[in-house]
Amino acid sequence: MAAMELPFSKSEYDRRLALTRKGMEAYGLDALVVTSPAGMNWLTGYDGWSFYVDQAVIVTGDGMPYWWGRLMDANGARRTAFLDDDHILFYADRYIQADGIHPMDDLAEKLAGLALDKARIGVEMNAYYYSAAGHAALLKGLPSATIKDGSGLVDWQRVVKSDEEISFMRKAAQISNRVMTHAMEIAEPGMKKNRFVGELMKTAITGVDDIWGDYPAIMPLLPSGPDASAPHLTWSGDEFRTGEATFIEQAGCYRRYHAPLSRTVFFGKPPQYMTDAAEALVAGLNAGIEAARAGNRAGDIAAALEKELWKVGIERPNRCGYATGLAYPPDWGEHTVSIRTIDETVLKPGMTLHFMPGLWMDDWGLEITETILITENGPAEALCRVERKLFVKD
Amino acid sequence: MAAMELPFSKSEYDRRLALTRKGMEAYGLDALVVTSPAGMNWLTGYDGWSFYVDQAVIVTGDGMPYWWGRLMDANGARRTAFLDDDHILFYADRYIQADGIHPMDDLAEKLAGLALDKARIGVEMNAYYYSAAGHAALLKGLPSATIKDGSGLVDWQRVVKSDEEISFMRKAAQISNRVMTHAMEIAEPGMKKNRFVGELMKTAITGVDDIWGDYPAIMPLLPSGPDASAPHLTWSGDEFRTGEATFIEQAGCYRRYHAPLSRTVFFGKPPQYMTDAAEALVAGLNAGIEAARAGNRAGDIAAALEKELWKVGIERPNRCGYATGLAYPPDWGEHTVSIRTIDETVLKPGMTLHFMPGLWMDDWGLEITETILITENGPAEALCRVERKLFVKD
Repeated sequence: MAAMELPFSKSEYDRRLALTRKGMEAYGLDALVVTSPAGMNWLTGYDGWSFYVDQAVIVTGDGMPYWWGRLMDANGARRTAFLDDDHILFYADRYIQADGIHPMDDLAEKLAGLALDKARIGVEMNAYYYSAAGHAALLKGLPSATIKDGSGLVDWQRVVKSDEEISFMRKAAQISNRVMTHAMEIAEPGMKKNRFVGELMKTAITGVDDIWGDYPAIMPLLPSGPDASAPHLTWSGDEFRTGEATFIEQAGCYRRYHAPLSRTVFFGKPPQYMTDAAEALVAGLNAGIEAARAGNRAGDIAAALEKELWKVGIERPNRCGYATGLAYPPDWGEHTVSIRTIDETVLKPGMTLHFMPGLWMDDWGLEITETILITENGPAEALCRVERKLFVKD
Repeated sequence: MAAMELPFSKSEYDRRLALTRKGMEAYGLDALVVTSPAGMNWLTGYDGWSFYVDQAVIVTGDGMPYWWGRLMDANGARRTAFLDDDHILFYADRYIQADGIHPMDDLAEKLAGLALDKARIGVEMNAYYYSAAGHAALLKGLPSATIKDGSGLVDWQRVVKSDEEISFMRKAAQISNRVMTHAMEIAEPGMKKNRFVGELMKTAITGVDDIWGDYPAIMPLLPSGPDASAPHLTWSGDEFRTGEATFIEQAGCYRRYHAPLSRTVFFGKPPQYMTDAAEALVAGLNAGIEAARAGNRAGDIAAALEKELWKVGIERPNRCGYATGLAYPPDWGEHTVSIRTIDETVLKPGMTLHFMPGLWMDDWGLEITETILITENGPAEALCRVERKLFVKD
């Protein structure tokens, strides 16, 4: 059993395992190999920066799941997951980045050892850290098994958050509030962006009282001026400049749960087209949150937003949000629900989404985003509490 | 051409492209699809937190490489890479996390558009962010092409650093020095670990004068006491305690180049077995650095270390280091040279390695590590300058 305190109650992990097994039944699987770090954590509590080598959680038809990973990480599994010692399996260090052998050779042997060599086994073909080479090795090592694509199986069980999880999301949101408020206080022309990010990261990890900050799955994104036409640039040693907009996209993180929040700051007097765009964006966010009701479709949120943006002539071809919560680098999105007009997912209470209608134009950009919680009745709740507007520092 | 200043000279990028094409020739390839973010950056300068979606750099037999990625990231390529606009290819947002279609469907079309539909194309089957599902889609989309595994092709061209790169490594090392010195100043019993990490991250990103800090490819690892038996635990809101050792593994990062450095601090009077182990570890590091000479093998470094550790009865089954430098999450290792007895790589001037003989015992752990540069003559140079010892705060 875990030497460290588990984040959640045992009944919460039981709930997750039961949901996963129901999914496995629907997929026709005897076993599921979960390689996404978020899925591994969600199922067992396992937490560590070990996802740069092959590792997995194996769920079979009954009993406790198995953790499998590198020998040196077995101690991490013993300390953070609720698993008994004989459910912690490992491979020798010689498999690491070596020619001619692959850690997945060992996984194949371990699965055979669990009498799964002729079983129907699901793998996450689309997950981060499940490589094409690893897949090939697993297929080769289990010639009599039926390997099926179980991408998304666990992810979709994670969509509706439990009360315990929602309380973590609220804590993450408190960190996001603190970070963004501090950001807007200290940002000023002439400040070097790396110094600014240093302050933000310190604030995020320090957290709020006992709510200690964990590392976010994405580093702060904060391009300025023309660079803000590119959504995923990080920072440099350049200075903030008068006459430029900078969007700040970041997430507070509490025990791997994220509440992303973005705001934009302009130094000086913003041009009219930017003020207009920001107003339309806020109107779109408000309309989208109104539409984000249990029973509506995810696509309804996008449609409500687009209607407001069209009023100022902005056509936005991209999706404007996604499910968020428990995550590891490189993404705080959960790869299930997308907020885009064609997404037919019916919204349910407990879903948490990053509603993020960023505008990345030819030579400027603007982001005002919210993490929202679908409620039992009425519109969604925005978990963060930072004024929804373009911040201007004149 | 890049709107932002490129990190390196044009001749440096020419050198890299020529090396890569030589590798392609040896592998018998007409084209290479590079999906590792570090490889993409090394070849073109492209830098952004966009590796959570499919993207690649395509190298053909001659001319400028191509960047390929998501529509919204094309602006990032325009701003950070040296490529002409018609060498920036992109796919529509509808491919993102959608059922029935995959971004690699689009890559197959783009490669066909470059008349590569019958070509011999290398892919990085073992790279992060090249998924099993993406590989399957690419194979399906290019039925007449010969798709070969080109894992490591670019990585091995990166092993010997140019003078320009070494100057970046030295800057990263300056940041590492600053972070570790500050860490040893402020660490004390009763301090919450998340507050400690907040200070460290602020210091790392603030950097040293004009050497601005970039995000490290691995977050700080700093387990304490029995948790230090597990190498890859991050932090929590727990306090440092008297009578416990904490190792701090981190890397300063300058423009994606890393100089990892670890030290261990003990609060109170360390037990004799730990002092002995630390002394043996330092002796092993010194011996390994002596052995890390051009012409020797990587395995000689490991052998020199092990000899010292055996003297105090420590047998260490894991590799004790790896090539490091340009990297993105989740790893600052370059997946080429390993420091382990069986590694026959001949050391060459300009190689940079993280020599990291961590000790992870049953209920304690210790790390003292160095980033070393293989020199023309004599032993390797340790790039960081923090006293090589167990730090004790009584």
